[in-house]
Amino acid sequence: MDVMVVGLGPIGQRAIQHMHRMGGFRVVGAVDINPELAGRSLREVVKGVPWDTPVQQDLEAVLSAHPGTPVLVYTRSHLPEVMDTLTTLIQHGHPVVSTTEELADPWTRYPRESRQLDELARAKGVAVLGTGVNPGFAMDFLPGILTAVVHELEHIAVYRHQEAFHRRYPLQKKIGSGLTVAEFEEKWARREMGHVGLVESAYLLGRMMGWKVDRIEEDCRPVLAEEDIQTAYFHVRPGQVQGILHTVRAYEGDRERVYLELQMALRVPDPRDEVVLKGEPPLRMVIPGGIPGDPATVNISLGMIRVIQELPPGLRTMGDLPVPHYRRGS
Amino acid sequence: MDVMVVGLGPIGQRAIQHMHRMGGFRVVGAVDINPELAGRSLREVVKGVPWDTPVQQDLEAVLSAHPGTPVLVYTRSHLPEVMDTLTTLIQHGHPVVSTTEELADPWTRYPRESRQLDELARAKGVAVLGTGVNPGFAMDFLPGILTAVVHELEHIAVYRHQEAFHRRYPLQKKIGSGLTVAEFEEKWARREMGHVGLVESAYLLGRMMGWKVDRIEEDCRPVLAEEDIQTAYFHVRPGQVQGILHTVRAYEGDRERVYLELQMALRVPDPRDEVVLKGEPPLRMVIPGGIPGDPATVNISLGMIRVIQELPPGLRTMGDLPVPHYRRGS
Repeated sequence: MDVMVVGLGPIGQRAIQHMHRMGGFRVVGAVDINPELAGRSLREVVKGVPWDTPVQQDLEAVLSAHPGTPVLVYTRSHLPEVMDTLTTLIQHGHPVVSTTEELADPWTRYPRESRQLDELARAKGVAVLGTGVNPGFAMDFLPGILTAVVHELEHIAVYRHQEAFHRRYPLQKKIGSGLTVAEFEEKWARREMGHVGLVESAYLLGRMMGWKVDRIEEDCRPVLAEEDIQTAYFHVRPGQVQGILHTVRAYEGDRERVYLELQMALRVPDPRDEVVLKGEPPLRMVIPGGIPGDPATVNISLGMIRVIQELPPGLRTMGDLPVPHYRRGS
Repeated sequence: MDVMVVGLGPIGQRAIQHMHRMGGFRVVGAVDINPELAGRSLREVVKGVPWDTPVQQDLEAVLSAHPGTPVLVYTRSHLPEVMDTLTTLIQHGHPVVSTTEELADPWTRYPRESRQLDELARAKGVAVLGTGVNPGFAMDFLPGILTAVVHELEHIAVYRHQEAFHRRYPLQKKIGSGLTVAEFEEKWARREMGHVGLVESAYLLGRMMGWKVDRIEEDCRPVLAEEDIQTAYFHVRPGQVQGILHTVRAYEGDRERVYLELQMALRVPDPRDEVVLKGEPPLRMVIPGGIPGDPATVNISLGMIRVIQELPPGLRTMGDLPVPHYRRGS
């Protein structure tokens, strides 16, 4: 199938490589704001791919050359940062899959923007979807699918413990490597620390399960180094921050329904993805080592661009897909 | 939502109970061939449910009273046994979800019947779907979803090891409890032993992954008791059969792509559902203890009846749903 890619950072480039290796895709348009890439071909910009497609700066010019072609957006994490891009794409009648974390379930945090995108997408007859590994899969969609086997569900707990020792510099920085506890806490107070999208996963699960999320409790604590840790980018001393322990609790009335625990640290004792369903029957699932982040985000977005034209028009979430899962009726 | 149920055996009755407890469902029609149930109300026939809906023997009479209402079919395992029922339901314009094992992916084994159902369903504008825990979820759909995080997939292995010690009599009998090895092998030679639907799971995974299944190798071996086993229904002596080890290998050319291993025995050392993906990145998932069979089949069928009207008309499989998964392009 033909697709277009907006955003040629590490994730966008990786997506183009995966599409080439997997087969079945042709990247017919590529857009990036970086003026250094403008006019160069994908084969020059992205290692190992054969496509001559030129990278362009002007989104509208690319769109008009490929009407209706599905678009992958790999740019920013926050919804307001991508509103213009999404609006332009939808205006021109393109179905969109984006890894923008806050787009995974924007209805609660951004009701006005969500309605706006939804109405425009319905009017234009295209679907717009936010996805990725987290949010979009590991801590929401996959646990949601597992609830399909349960008929009386009380509570969902999801643990994602990821080791960042061998990961990219931006990630090691993002989790606070080398900060003091005071620096960490200041950053968290300004919400400059923590994983964007964790709250969205809780909303997504609530939506799937038919639970009303009345209240969210969120916390992010530093994980401290007990001994020296030396990565390719950071030297962390004992007592300094080596990662985050970010938790979200979603309540329905006074009842806790969802508990999400994301630990991302340079060193983690038992890295894994784990789901614990309390209900009838109870269920536990473990992926030892855990699902690797960046490649999974790319692959999941490719999985969804392949089927985006089968989804009903509008702003969709991974929680709206026609799949089996528990759902409390009224 | 309103639904109708065809087949009030143990699974059909359980489904009605779960619908009541979960909420959001109303069973407005119920059909069973058993003359003893005819004319009685669901509240008399199914423990714990409040519905007055009468159980009827005449399928067409029930259908005409509730045009277009989705129908759950819990009757037989083999496709030819349900062709008449499915055809009648589709003729009358009802979407259908059935736990008929061979309906999970009937295209290879029953191409003529599949085309027939597909064409009729398209003409009538309804979707028809086979689902359940196995086939339909544990050994095909769920492993398929997990491949979403992989971009170069070589092989899928699925292990489902289930302990039958506390299960129903028909299941303990079905796995050969108390047979001699010779009796077991005779039965397997006549294909009266083994799990209906295991081959269908392999076809389903091949379909999802974009792999051509050129050849299937199937084997079913007895699991023997090493000491006395006394269940509520069987006394199995050392050397007698206490279960099955049923395996399916699917090849693309000479290359094994899928390995499915189903062990169902009275005593099993490490009961679990396990998926092993060989690819980039590799992945392993475990559900310790495994997904319980009967309740999961019921819950999954309820999960799908809830969304059956969102699926495109025709004969659908769990492998056609718009979800993320690996797919090799051409």
